[in-house]
Amino acid sequence: MTVVTGPVWWDGDMALDPDATLGEAGEFGLISQLVAQFGEALADDEHVLVGPGDDAAVLRIRHGHVVVSTDMVVEGRHFRRDWASAEDVGHRAAAQNLSDINAMGGTARHLTIGLAAPADLPVQWALDFARGFAAECATVGATVVGGDTTRADEIVIAVTVLGQCTVSPVLRSGARPGDVLALTGRQGWAAGGLAVLGRGFRSPRVLVEAYRRPEPPYAAGKEAAEAGATSLIDVSDGLLAEAAHLAEASGVAIDVRTGAFEVPEPLVAVGAALGADPMQFILAGGDDHALLATFPDTGSVPAGWQVVGDVREGEGVTVDGGAYDGPTGWTHF
Amino acid sequence: MTVVTGPVWWDGDMALDPDATLGEAGEFGLISQLVAQFGEALADDEHVLVGPGDDAAVLRIRHGHVVVSTDMVVEGRHFRRDWASAEDVGHRAAAQNLSDINAMGGTARHLTIGLAAPADLPVQWALDFARGFAAECATVGATVVGGDTTRADEIVIAVTVLGQCTVSPVLRSGARPGDVLALTGRQGWAAGGLAVLGRGFRSPRVLVEAYRRPEPPYAAGKEAAEAGATSLIDVSDGLLAEAAHLAEASGVAIDVRTGAFEVPEPLVAVGAALGADPMQFILAGGDDHALLATFPDTGSVPAGWQVVGDVREGEGVTVDGGAYDGPTGWTHF
Repeated sequence: MTVVTGPVWWDGDMALDPDATLGEAGEFGLISQLVAQFGEALADDEHVLVGPGDDAAVLRIRHGHVVVSTDMVVEGRHFRRDWASAEDVGHRAAAQNLSDINAMGGTARHLTIGLAAPADLPVQWALDFARGFAAECATVGATVVGGDTTRADEIVIAVTVLGQCTVSPVLRSGARPGDVLALTGRQGWAAGGLAVLGRGFRSPRVLVEAYRRPEPPYAAGKEAAEAGATSLIDVSDGLLAEAAHLAEASGVAIDVRTGAFEVPEPLVAVGAALGADPMQFILAGGDDHALLATFPDTGSVPAGWQVVGDVREGEGVTVDGGAYDGPTGWTHF
Repeated sequence: MTVVTGPVWWDGDMALDPDATLGEAGEFGLISQLVAQFGEALADDEHVLVGPGDDAAVLRIRHGHVVVSTDMVVEGRHFRRDWASAEDVGHRAAAQNLSDINAMGGTARHLTIGLAAPADLPVQWALDFARGFAAECATVGATVVGGDTTRADEIVIAVTVLGQCTVSPVLRSGARPGDVLALTGRQGWAAGGLAVLGRGFRSPRVLVEAYRRPEPPYAAGKEAAEAGATSLIDVSDGLLAEAAHLAEASGVAIDVRTGAFEVPEPLVAVGAALGADPMQFILAGGDDHALLATFPDTGSVPAGWQVVGDVREGEGVTVDGGAYDGPTGWTHF
């Protein structure tokens, strides 16, 4: 295996001080330091024939199909530097992308990162971001194989993730009337944390941490595929919004039952403190990267999943059998 | 083959007027229109099992290794809307990425696009961009399989390209003393066009067009690999800068001979008009996405390549055997 790690411009003696900016480090100084964050995992990845430092990375893909997805993260829209550390942002950006492969029933393997940032961004921010990103990838055994850096007025992070499907991928379009709707993973916690931060608070800490570092159920996508899930999606933008994607792609109606959710105690507390119905965090919250799936019957729902509704003839999403006029999720424009 | 093209939210009657902004179209309106730009080519691509519209695309990769590269393009830094049409920017963004696969000796197959843009950007700009992007991809038979859109203060485009190598990829690190250095493709034309635009002129038109729509030698990378090239890179940021990358990665010195270049007439004219040495456009210009390679001897250099220097013991890049103190290329911070 040849891992091309690119020129190393800096050694200990030459390293800039911790407050150095991207502008002071320069493009190649930045890249070599970023690559160093990813290099250790790369050295152990026998599927990477050529890593960062050449015109492109080269990957060994022996069998199965390649699954690919791209997501962007923008400062001020997807994160705030005063609400989440650079390392947190790295975890979140990785989690968001790894979750897309999870939501196909695949296994995430390799990622590239595009980082556009102002010249006055501290190098340390970029390195902390990269460390968090690499740590999140390590939880599923995925590695960063390449990327690009450039200057921009605000921080824009673009991640592409490549995965493998060794079982048939589960699409959004397979739900059929009579199926049951099931959820796995935390849901509403990140939204609760975001609501808390938006009011200037830092507790309940468990919700704030859930927002800062989601814990997606990474093993559950493949399990769902193997258990015969008929459709599958991750909850990025809101549970009802994602249910609507399933319903639309499958040409069915979906009913969500609020009574099926156990409202976690921290969400009850936040609801009381903010004068909000905690069920709203669950129904409209994203960013936990829970998985939402349909299965042919309750008997095929794997352990760890909660049945939260059912699939019917028709179109659209109802809540407890009726129309729902609260927020359903997040839109980007 | 199942191509999931996602929900179509608009038909002719519902379409917004041509001046509609991204904010008015909304995320899903924008996405469905963008996907329509790419859908026709996708329908013919038997390697795409799942296209845009699900959590991830699914690609059939039967043999060979997967080559992957990511590049970003930022308004005001990589393009100006008054210097290039949206369609031109699409061509350029695609060309820049396709060229990275070319520079590995591979064949570009699939791309994803991340588009971050202000809410007041006209939808028409995004659609024209997508049309130019798709047209450039079509020249090599590659298709767009997915992406993401989000809001940002400035336009940031992140492209990831996946290709296949069916011969051993050619890295930057294989040049050996005694090799010859060779170039193929236009070089200096885009830089000449950029210089002209920077002074407020629009001619020579052939240079301005070369900047707006580069014509990379897409077939040449694989030809070079098959001809036994020992190292290979594309000229994105400047010929001498890229030669320095080859020299550093290979642990060799490279000498570039200015006498080997025939200076094209339009560059002579621009040099005279701007009081510049036209050789500077050739030595420091990027954006044409010419290919620079080393071969074991002149006999192995394929037709269409020009020998422009040689590889020696040592380190660094010299011009005509001596130090060069002019600009060597573009740096991003």
